[in-house]
Amino acid sequence: MGMVNRHFIRIFWYAYLMCLFFQAVYAEAKVTKPNILMILTDDLGYADVGFNGAKDIKTPNLDVLAQNGVTFTSAYVAHPFCGPSRAGLFTGRYPHKIGSQYNLPTVKGAGGIGVPVEETYFSRVLQDSGYFTGAVGKWHLGEARQYHPNSRGFDEFFGFLNGGHDYFPDQSSKRYAALVEAGRTNIYGYIAPLEYNGSPVQETEYLTDALSREAVKFIDKAKASTQPWFLYLAYNAPHTPLQAKEEDLAVFPHIQDAKRRTYAAMVLAVDRGVARIVDHLKKTHQFENTLIIFFSDNGGRLDQGASNSPLSEGKGSVMEGGYRTPMFIHWAEGLERGQSYRHPVHALDFYPTLTNLAGGQVPEGKQLDGKDILPAILSGESARPGESIFVMRHRKGLSDVAARRDRWKAVRVANGAWRLFDVEEDPGETTDLSEQYPKLLADLVADMDAWSWSHEHPRWFHIQKEGFDWREDNMPRFHETFELPTGSLD
Amino acid sequence: MGMVNRHFIRIFWYAYLMCLFFQAVYAEAKVTKPNILMILTDDLGYADVGFNGAKDIKTPNLDVLAQNGVTFTSAYVAHPFCGPSRAGLFTGRYPHKIGSQYNLPTVKGAGGIGVPVEETYFSRVLQDSGYFTGAVGKWHLGEARQYHPNSRGFDEFFGFLNGGHDYFPDQSSKRYAALVEAGRTNIYGYIAPLEYNGSPVQETEYLTDALSREAVKFIDKAKASTQPWFLYLAYNAPHTPLQAKEEDLAVFPHIQDAKRRTYAAMVLAVDRGVARIVDHLKKTHQFENTLIIFFSDNGGRLDQGASNSPLSEGKGSVMEGGYRTPMFIHWAEGLERGQSYRHPVHALDFYPTLTNLAGGQVPEGKQLDGKDILPAILSGESARPGESIFVMRHRKGLSDVAARRDRWKAVRVANGAWRLFDVEEDPGETTDLSEQYPKLLADLVADMDAWSWSHEHPRWFHIQKEGFDWREDNMPRFHETFELPTGSLD
Amino acid sequence: MGMVNRHFIRIFWYAYLMCLFFQAVYAEAKVTKPNILMILTDDLGYADVGFNGAKDIKTPNLDVLAQNGVTFTSAYVAHPFCGPSRAGLFTGRYPHKIGSQYNLPTVKGAGGIGVPVEETYFSRVLQDSGYFTGAVGKWHLGEARQYHPNSRGFDEFFGFLNGGHDYFPDQSSKRYAALVEAGRTNIYGYIAPLEYNGSPVQETEYLTDALSREAVKFIDKAKASTQPWFLYLAYNAPHTPLQAKEEDLAVFPHIQDAKRRTYAAMVLAVDRGVARIVDHLKKTHQFENTLIIFFSDNGGRLDQGASNSPLSEGKGSVMEGGYRTPMFIHWAEGLERGQSYRHPVHALDFYPTLTNLAGGQVPEGKQLDGKDILPAILSGESARPGESIFVMRHRKGLSDVAARRDRWKAVRVANGAWRLFDVEEDPGETTDLSEQYPKLLADLVADMDAWSWSHEHPRWFHIQKEGFDWREDNMPRFHETFELPTGSLD
Repeated sequence: MGMVNRHFIRIFWYAYLMCLFFQAVYAEAKVTKPNILMILTDDLGYADVGFNGAKDIKTPNLDVLAQNGVTFTSAYVAHPFCGPSRAGLFTGRYPHKIGSQYNLPTVKGAGGIGVPVEETYFSRVLQDSGYFTGAVGKWHLGEARQYHPNSRGFDEFFGFLNGGHDYFPDQSSKRYAALVEAGRTNIYGYIAPLEYNGSPVQETEYLTDALSREAVKFIDKAKASTQPWFLYLAYNAPHTPLQAKEEDLAVFPHIQDAKRRTYAAMVLAVDRGVARIVDHLKKTHQFENTLIIFFSDNGGRLDQGASNSPLSEGKGSVMEGGYRTPMFIHWAEGLERGQSYRHPVHALDFYPTLTNLAGGQVPEGKQLDGKDILPAILSGESARPGESIFVMRHRKGLSDVAARRDRWKAVRVANGAWRLFDVEEDPGETTDLSEQYPKLLADLVADMDAWSWSHEHPRWFHIQKEGFDWREDNMPRFHETFELPTGSLD
Repeated sequence: MGMVNRHFIRIFWYAYLMCLFFQAVYAEAKVTKPNILMILTDDLGYADVGFNGAKDIKTPNLDVLAQNGVTFTSAYVAHPFCGPSRAGLFTGRYPHKIGSQYNLPTVKGAGGIGVPVEETYFSRVLQDSGYFTGAVGKWHLGEARQYHPNSRGFDEFFGFLNGGHDYFPDQSSKRYAALVEAGRTNIYGYIAPLEYNGSPVQETEYLTDALSREAVKFIDKAKASTQPWFLYLAYNAPHTPLQAKEEDLAVFPHIQDAKRRTYAAMVLAVDRGVARIVDHLKKTHQFENTLIIFFSDNGGRLDQGASNSPLSEGKGSVMEGGYRTPMFIHWAEGLERGQSYRHPVHALDFYPTLTNLAGGQVPEGKQLDGKDILPAILSGESARPGESIFVMRHRKGLSDVAARRDRWKAVRVANGAWRLFDVEEDPGETTDLSEQYPKLLADLVADMDAWSWSHEHPRWFHIQKEGFDWREDNMPRFHETFELPTGSLD
Repeated sequence: MGMVNRHFIRIFWYAYLMCLFFQAVYAEAKVTKPNILMILTDDLGYADVGFNGAKDIKTPNLDVLAQNGVTFTSAYVAHPFCGPSRAGLFTGRYPHKIGSQYNLPTVKGAGGIGVPVEETYFSRVLQDSGYFTGAVGKWHLGEARQYHPNSRGFDEFFGFLNGGHDYFPDQSSKRYAALVEAGRTNIYGYIAPLEYNGSPVQETEYLTDALSREAVKFIDKAKASTQPWFLYLAYNAPHTPLQAKEEDLAVFPHIQDAKRRTYAAMVLAVDRGVARIVDHLKKTHQFENTLIIFFSDNGGRLDQGASNSPLSEGKGSVMEGGYRTPMFIHWAEGLERGQSYRHPVHALDFYPTLTNLAGGQVPEGKQLDGKDILPAILSGESARPGESIFVMRHRKGLSDVAARRDRWKAVRVANGAWRLFDVEEDPGETTDLSEQYPKLLADLVADMDAWSWSHEHPRWFHIQKEGFDWREDNMPRFHETFELPTGSLD
């Protein structure tokens, strides 16, 4: 054998040894990677869980998890509406920066529309780093093949692509079938069949129970795969329509208000589902090493039975009630029990936090607006001292907007006066401090102004008229939005 | 030799054997891949070929091909204008989805403008799968280097990049030279020299004859290459200017109308050209294995000698006369003779149909709006039962739009009333059935609404004023376009 | 050893020999690649250097370089404002084509905003071809990580990312620290600390001297690297604020006007800095093989002490004074001494010229609007006979625009009358020839019209109000901009 061949063999051996090394590293990593269970509720009020003080509504199982985990008193989502909030969650970016700041069009089959495929979801990063991944429940991020959960990082999907669903699919599917039979094609999505990996399924259980059942099924499949797993369990509850099981309603005879009573029963079904899943995790010896996150996509609707007390307003608002969410993280092996974390955290933080935890590789050039908050949670310090969390909702011809920085929040609604609150002391936003701190307010407004420059024009609207209004009003009219109160500048 | 080396050799042998296998497969494939000859006419009327019933106009050679192939009675193009129709043909996408829904700017040398390079043409897919590819005739898809046929999948190009050309290049090139001599630079494109692969050529023949001659020349070159080949032969005829050879005019003494007579003579020259090419294919034993497609880019102009009878209106219209096209496919080895296919097919279908036929690899992530129609043609069934084919033309401040689904067509022009036709029974669109079938109409309108959400704003306009109007009118005003007639909703 | 193994060894030897060959070629190339020193001043008047005729201002060192190099009498930049001019310089494209036709937002930290990363800078091409690269001074092309010099082809960066800076950083940094101490966050960028590769530095020297010092430091570091090098030295001078050293002011007792006097002193500091660098190049035996380019980013401000005589108007104008720049190239080893080049050249030409010179590989698909002008400089002929150089500045509701072709220039300001000048004979643009040459004017307007089709809508504006105005006025209103004078068409 000549010199060249020996040289080749040496290179080959190096490569071979490197393979062995990485296999070893990987095997090691596999052992320590936690499973991740993210439970997202829909339109759940800040005050509507026991661990946040609810008296009439009962969530005993959630409360136990919260007490044994870390609760967050200042957790925010990316937008006070479902679609943009979820677009932010999965992309780790403010939905305004990727043109996803509106809910998807209501018309069925708006096929080319969905959260831009260039924005890799964190579910994909987890999948690529060796996780077995599943989504169960509501999607609402695009219906065409390229936007489907199975195209965006989920090995498994059970649920519905629409923005909502009836809770008694057995009944609604009959209405659906009758319309199909009559030749109709543009049928209300809430009554369409659920699907499993793209194929329709005939579901008979109450929706929340069905999703809990499928979550358990996924966990078994995941365990069999021997991979670490990530489950995104997106309950439709307690989003409208207000529909509950009789047995759950029967638990709340003390609630007079019919809407509140049904809402309470819907939340109870979620609590029951979580209990069922936790039991299963314990039974299969996975509970200790599963990181469980619980929160909501936006605030509760005050006109639909929810309460965000002591926060002001609700879903759709940039006041605290619109986008501050009840939240806990439970992770027996990784987090100390019984903490309460008071600094602001953001749903956009989950992308870097979870992908770091999983040892995932975020694609080169991918921008992220959040932070890995795990070190801050462990130390109890703020993850973003001096940095703002933003929220913005467009209306006809104007934008509501707010920035939270440390204990402060500057907010403007309907082009009214700028207000400044100490939301740590005053979470109900009752005492306006803008006259006391005009320079602080000006700095916060400058933060928002700077942030707004990287917004994209919306890629879609909820209905055609909204898009026309946007153009006719020459939106965004940020020169008006960020007008400063006189005298606040140096 | 040690273990490692033996291992290497085994891998090497596997690779080697795999190469041999693929070579064999490829050689096999080469034998069976058909040549493809796509003949596209320009502004040819639906009724202006013998095989569609023309009496005064003569197309004996086309008729023979049609009779021995499959004729299509409901073939549609992507837009009732040249540019967007061709953009759709080559990209396989509705031109509205790629911002190409207007003809390119009239001003000479609008260099940065052309059909987006991200949209791989099917010619490129064919080329990449081993086809020798040529384009002869009109291009109209962008003039800069990156939009040139040679950059978009064509080994050979003879013709002109502009939207049209004079038919007697010998004369027009003299006028052109005189203007150049006088120092002028913004010279009417119709009189510029033809080109071959980017270099100007001095052409002396009547344009249609010159293009037929070059088609034959390409076929010889392709045969010499031993590759299967694809030729896109885009005749300028019978697009304006109405200019014919004396000998062709002499064939139609019976036509009184001067425009119609010239138009007929121009179509005759196309027919003669096709005959010449077919003869050559036969002589070179390629006729049997060449798939020949014949159609037009949009309807005929009623004010320029064309007839779309029995269809209503013509070029530029979303009535049938605007975008239903005379069409046949002839393929001796692959298709049964003498069929007529009555289900709707679309020019967007050619992309998947031809690339599948060629065993081509469509780029990952490339979206296509059409279907492979070959199985449906072979079975005689519809390729898209229950699915709509759309057409839309923007005007100042509004959009004309229509959807064809199965036998039905819903159409709205100039924001007038929605109408519904059974275009299988009533191709002339005379009997409005919208009052009889309000729910069907509503479903078709919902289809169009959903489709419209994936439109892009136009990347260019024909003239600057159109772009200004688009912005000033806050187009698209789809909330008006898709207003439903009262009572049509559930 | 079997046949397969012998085959492998042969391939290996081929690869090995090829490596040796390329190493040899590369070593050869390394020897001959010149260093490149690009000195860009800010708002320097056409008439404010000795080599262009200045009497009161003294630039003896620049003058010597100019006399021993090639001076350019018709050198243009891409835009009459700083930001777009530099965006054009680095991308080789008209800033209008990449949405960069406005200065970046004034608000601090507009993070997502900067010259699109898809447009590879020529500094990156040089870096990739083996150059050691440095930027010293003003950046003004985006502040976020992805837009930072270190992300766009520069190994080293010393300076500031903002659009300008105070000249006495020692003083301004104290004001800055006091505001930080007071909790302010939106602090005027001109007083922020300078940085080195992303980390703030405490600077005490007069800004222009500090930048010259860092240039020398870079050159030493570059020499030690043994790579050829490229230094982009972007002096802030003589941009406002008008601040000069006492010793420099003392040189100009003869200038009465206070602004002019300070301005002259600021230019003197630049001249001194260049002298210092040239001395260092000579001392380290690099002067002969260093190509030195000197120019300005746009015209001087007549209200801030500058003179563009004999050119008309200044910074911000599309008259010659706005974007014709004083320029020379000195390259002892490569260019004959003492030439004056009178044909139009463009800052966009540097991209292809310098990357060709460096043997760099421009990314596939990258579009460039300029030309490699080195052959033309060597031959003394025009680099673009018959081709236009464009300039356009948007104002509220309209655009100022001009095209220079050969000796001619067509220009329109504030939608006034089109004018035509022979700017070779009449650089002051005093004699309108549009009535004499209506067809020539029409051709030039058609050139501009065609060019404008490839513009992108601005990706940002200087302030929010400008963006709103753009939308409200339905800009660009090019159907008005390119209206031709009556009678100018054939």
